[in-house]
Amino acid sequence: MDMDVTKLSEMEFRVTMVKMMCRLEKSINENVNENIESLRAEMRANLAEIKNSMSQMQSKLEALTARVNEAEERIVELEDGLVEEKAKIESGLKKIHAQECRLQEITDSMKRSNVRIIGIPEGVEKNRGLEEIFEQIVAENFPNLARETSIRVQEAERTPPRLNHDKPTPRHIIVQFANIRSKDTVLKAARAKKLLTYQGKCIRITSDLSTETWNERKAWGGIFKALSEKNMQPRILYPAKLSFRIDGEIKTFQNRQSLTNFVTTKPALQEILRGAL
Amino acid sequence: MDMDVTKLSEMEFRVTMVKMMCRLEKSINENVNENIESLRAEMRANLAEIKNSMSQMQSKLEALTARVNEAEERIVELEDGLVEEKAKIESGLKKIHAQECRLQEITDSMKRSNVRIIGIPEGVEKNRGLEEIFEQIVAENFPNLARETSIRVQEAERTPPRLNHDKPTPRHIIVQFANIRSKDTVLKAARAKKLLTYQGKCIRITSDLSTETWNERKAWGGIFKALSEKNMQPRILYPAKLSFRIDGEIKTFQNRQSLTNFVTTKPALQEILRGAL
Amino acid sequence: MDMDVTKLSEMEFRVTMVKMMCRLEKSINENVNENIESLRAEMRANLAEIKNSMSQMQSKLEALTARVNEAEERIVELEDGLVEEKAKIESGLKKIHAQECRLQEITDSMKRSNVRIIGIPEGVEKNRGLEEIFEQIVAENFPNLARETSIRVQEAERTPPRLNHDKPTPRHIIVQFANIRSKDTVLKAARAKKLLTYQGKCIRITSDLSTETWNERKAWGGIFKALSEKNMQPRILYPAKLSFRIDGEIKTFQNRQSLTNFVTTKPALQEILRGAL
Repeated sequence: MDMDVTKLSEMEFRVTMVKMMCRLEKSINENVNENIESLRAEMRANLAEIKNSMSQMQSKLEALTARVNEAEERIVELEDGLVEEKAKIESGLKKIHAQECRLQEITDSMKRSNVRIIGIPEGVEKNRGLEEIFEQIVAENFPNLARETSIRVQEAERTPPRLNHDKPTPRHIIVQFANIRSKDTVLKAARAKKLLTYQGKCIRITSDLSTETWNERKAWGGIFKALSEKNMQPRILYPAKLSFRIDGEIKTFQNRQSLTNFVTTKPALQEILRGAL
Repeated sequence: MDMDVTKLSEMEFRVTMVKMMCRLEKSINENVNENIESLRAEMRANLAEIKNSMSQMQSKLEALTARVNEAEERIVELEDGLVEEKAKIESGLKKIHAQECRLQEITDSMKRSNVRIIGIPEGVEKNRGLEEIFEQIVAENFPNLARETSIRVQEAERTPPRLNHDKPTPRHIIVQFANIRSKDTVLKAARAKKLLTYQGKCIRITSDLSTETWNERKAWGGIFKALSEKNMQPRILYPAKLSFRIDGEIKTFQNRQSLTNFVTTKPALQEILRGAL
Repeated sequence: MDMDVTKLSEMEFRVTMVKMMCRLEKSINENVNENIESLRAEMRANLAEIKNSMSQMQSKLEALTARVNEAEERIVELEDGLVEEKAKIESGLKKIHAQECRLQEITDSMKRSNVRIIGIPEGVEKNRGLEEIFEQIVAENFPNLARETSIRVQEAERTPPRLNHDKPTPRHIIVQFANIRSKDTVLKAARAKKLLTYQGKCIRITSDLSTETWNERKAWGGIFKALSEKNMQPRILYPAKLSFRIDGEIKTFQNRQSLTNFVTTKPALQEILRGAL
């Protein structure tokens, strides 16, 4: 519209006006639509990009979901497997415990005709054999038994079989009798006589028990002492039971737990065993 | 364009027209572009927001993927670990089973020179000892054996060692012989004589076996009876094997499984054992 | 604008021009805004769709995250559980091993008064009993011992108890003595005499040991031979220890490991045992 419209003839102006208007309409439409289309293109590109990303994420999410599904299944299988194995372990450990008890029983049973003699100096058996040493012990401590023929010694040996020169104390002697009665007779006589000697030196004669049973017996120690002080006549019964007199009758307990249960019903006994149980 | 164009001079109108057209173009362009830019801004804001959200999701997805990776690795380790432990458990349980068998063997072996006497009233041993009671039983039931010196009793005792006053039946007596031959002789004599007595009252003399072996022997019961009815001479062999005569020869079976396997090849035997096996 | 503007009067043209301009403005605005609004609608629809998808993905991601959280917790529990069970298994297996050792000890201990005689033909005991066969062996091989009364045989039997006709070699004979000393005397005499016979045929007399102890003794074989060749006086001590003379003193080894440890300090011994250890 640079031209000088004032110089045009009337008709020229009119035609020019109309042309200008047409051109204006066209140019505006073109210009604007171009802008719009450029925006549309920009947006569509963005949307396409986003949709593409989203579709990728969707795929990844689905793949991950599938993996989580599988992982969960494997976890369930592991959980079930562990429960199964736990049960097997539990049952195995129970069997192991039962076998331990049985091994202890067998060991004790194999030692049932034995006594253990503690304190006999090493070497005294050199020219005589341990059986003769045992006869000397009987003669020295239980002269009455020496004449009894029912005490039949099967075997006597040092334990452990080989001497360890690093240990200052003599090895124990295990005397195995032909039967339990012989052992019981000797053990009873040994308990009745407070002081036992061999050639004048102090010795001890005890039951021969498995280590486990010894430990179980030792575990009664404090309780035994407390009951003893109250004259309740505590005794250790074979293999490691505790019995004592209460309310006029003799009660026997397999283990600490059974005594603990019993004690809850006897406040007086609870008082006596306070600190020991 | 409120002005009255009719009142303008020709030249004024022309100039006005051109101005109006310019203004129109400008105003339309401005107006439209503003709209477009506002849309663009709106869309860009939306897109930015979406892209931001997507980038956050992407991060979360990646983090989650990393966690799933790690979880899968831990699952693999757990699976491998469980397989390893399963193998250990399997081997442990096998060893436990083998040890059970061995404990049973040892227990049976420790009882191999014993017999178990059932039905001797409590207290009869008070003044005589159980060894003498056994001699009475031999004299009463097997007068021929009484004169034999080869039957050497090592020991005789009640089992369990302590009397339980709540039980109405007398405790069994375990007689331990010096050797298996003595036991075999006594047991054979006991089996040969249908009715055994002590002071006229009915008693029983059996092998002394581990509980497990007793249970295994008892488990042959129905089969033993079925074979007996067909005169197939079934016998229980030490410790708990079954033997019987079939097709002119004696077959021995360690356990039910080995018998089951054998039976599949013998339809006649299958018929006999129907319901018992 | 099809009309012929040239035919209009001046005033008509002016009014027409103004109207046209107004119409143009209106039409352009309408047209353009329609385009913009259509784009806006399109974009908003797209954005809504995307946001909806994203919100769905977000939900899925959150749900999956929750599942991964839970899975991780279950994995931790499984890991802790497995560690716990592993410890139990470890302790169980240790106990099983200890019990195996103890069973071996018990079995060996039960056989401690026994010897095993290998090579006595089946059936020779038919009219005499195995105890008498053993007396014959003593008379034939150790005439000095035959007069000793301290050798007390408790029992002699074939092992296994039942004859397997498929095996070409005679079953071994187990002789159980009343005590270990008797066994030691017989075994010592047997070792001193290189060649033992029964009715002129070659026989062997060995310790009676558990299978495990035999295997442990056999495992010393190559080492024993190598030490023997160097006159180092190797001996197998009960149950399966190796002892030999080195640098003027006698060393004893419980097992191969303790020997291996010792050997590292003795290059000369290492040379002797090269290939055997």
